Amino acid sequence: MFTGLSAFPLTPIHRDRVDEAAFAGLVGRLAGAGVDSITALGSTGSYAYLTRDERARVVRLAVEHAGEVPVLAGIGALRTSHVLEFAEDAQRAGASGVLLAPVSYQELTPDDVYGLYEDVTRALSVPLVVYDNPRTTHFSFTDDLYRDVARLPGVASLKIPGVPADPAEAARRVARLRELLPQGVTVGVSGDAFGATGLNAGCDAWYSVVGGTLPAPALEIVRAARSGAAERAEELSARLGPLWDLFARHGSLRVTAAIAEHLGLVRGPSLPLPLRGLGPQDRDRVARVVNELGLE
Amino acid sequence: MFTGLSAFPLTPIHRDRVDEAAFAGLVGRLAGAGVDSITALGSTGSYAYLTRDERARVVRLAVEHAGEVPVLAGIGALRTSHVLEFAEDAQRAGASGVLLAPVSYQELTPDDVYGLYEDVTRALSVPLVVYDNPRTTHFSFTDDLYRDVARLPGVASLKIPGVPADPAEAARRVARLRELLPQGVTVGVSGDAFGATGLNAGCDAWYSVVGGTLPAPALEIVRAARSGAAERAEELSARLGPLWDLFARHGSLRVTAAIAEHLGLVRGPSLPLPLRGLGPQDRDRVARVVNELGLE
Repeated sequence: MFTGLSAFPLTPIHRDRVDEAAFAGLVGRLAGAGVDSITALGSTGSYAYLTRDERARVVRLAVEHAGEVPVLAGIGALRTSHVLEFAEDAQRAGASGVLLAPVSYQELTPDDVYGLYEDVTRALSVPLVVYDNPRTTHFSFTDDLYRDVARLPGVASLKIPGVPADPAEAARRVARLRELLPQGVTVGVSGDAFGATGLNAGCDAWYSVVGGTLPAPALEIVRAARSGAAERAEELSARLGPLWDLFARHGSLRVTAAIAEHLGLVRGPSLPLPLRGLGPQDRDRVARVVNELGLE
Repeated sequence: MFTGLSAFPLTPIHRDRVDEAAFAGLVGRLAGAGVDSITALGSTGSYAYLTRDERARVVRLAVEHAGEVPVLAGIGALRTSHVLEFAEDAQRAGASGVLLAPVSYQELTPDDVYGLYEDVTRALSVPLVVYDNPRTTHFSFTDDLYRDVARLPGVASLKIPGVPADPAEAARRVARLRELLPQGVTVGVSGDAFGATGLNAGCDAWYSVVGGTLPAPALEIVRAARSGAAERAEELSARLGPLWDLFARHGSLRVTAAIAEHLGLVRGPSLPLPLRGLGPQDRDRVARVVNELGLE
């Protein structure tokens, strides 16, 4: 379950409400494309902005529309007791696993973060993905903390924020992580521009933003990499370069929302305020890239 | 109302519940000491960790126990609609003003932040303090954005994260801010180590963490600075140097919680998990500093 392509759908928010029909459509599209898992309520799914009721409803919808594909659910929150509530709700809604990032307002210490994962794994009955996303959490894991947290019961996977761009360095980095982590804990790369390089370097999974909205090109990359066609995977990723450039400039969420709006998958605006979507010029650029690359 | 010492009390959280009696005690202590305003639910008041019900209750308690002292209330949240709910609740509970920081999970653009303040000031009937706290929000205001936001109706004050350590530079910085801001919008310094320098440089207010738990020494500094005794204000602040060192090392929240616990003002642990208090050694150091400085 913690290998291959894990696709992170948007949670479309239109006029301050979750657009449930559009979300169900996104999930159905991912299941139809044959992704390996669907992670609802990732950063791309705007979990941090949603209420308890909204989150519970989103996980239920995801499970309902995912068919046979396992659903993972983000459960992050600033306060441990809220994380525990979200974990309980996600399990009740049928999630096969949960994803937890150490979200911060006050700066967190490594002890705080270890304690968080300790408290949460103690309460869980499904496996957990440790979600390292320093850009949004403003917390940076050390390798020692990776090692300690990954030893907690129920930890199944580590979602890392990227790998070095150089293939040999990336392979060394993934090998180093393997030494640190208990056997059976998978390593998943994120940061979509690093997907191909990460998989080629030995990552088991790609936790993918783009895969949540454009599953076909993401699956192509995963299949190439996992069949040993490393160069082909890099070529497929390089072809999406204009998309990675837009992600780097505007953040993957805003660009992905613009793509989904352009393709008519969600109604715009689809982000929770105060997040505004891209302006008209940037939106045009996104549409041009999508059309030129023939993405759909 | 937006001048002098605005004291930021802790919201003590014991076993995952707001300790209402202890909070009421902290507020009463501030009112008794004669602070100029009390800001409930600042960063020191852990607003970001609290539910809507908890926040509403905390503001009501603050107003009940503040006597004649005006109460400001923090209303920050990741989602604009939640900020608007907290604003409404704070006004209903009797807050005389609100404090709003642009809290982020996804990186915010200046347009997002301007839009947030526009939407919120449009709905408010009490004045608003613009709260710039890049350490917790990870958003940095530009001077242009200060100017634009401060022109919105109802903006009464700007809480800045600090001033240059050099008195002449600090005075230039505050003078520059005065040029940018409409007349009547006050400038308040925060970052407690900068309190005396900021007031001496012409800031109208000190938005103070230490003042929320130890109002007497903070009031001494404010009174010295505002009576023109700049050197005396700096001396009083320098005397608290060991405290500022602890704040710099551990963050003001954890140190202030340890002080309040040491003085018996709140029951420990008093922070919301996953935030752990200081360890035993650091706690001893805090107690020693408090005792040596004769703080109470």
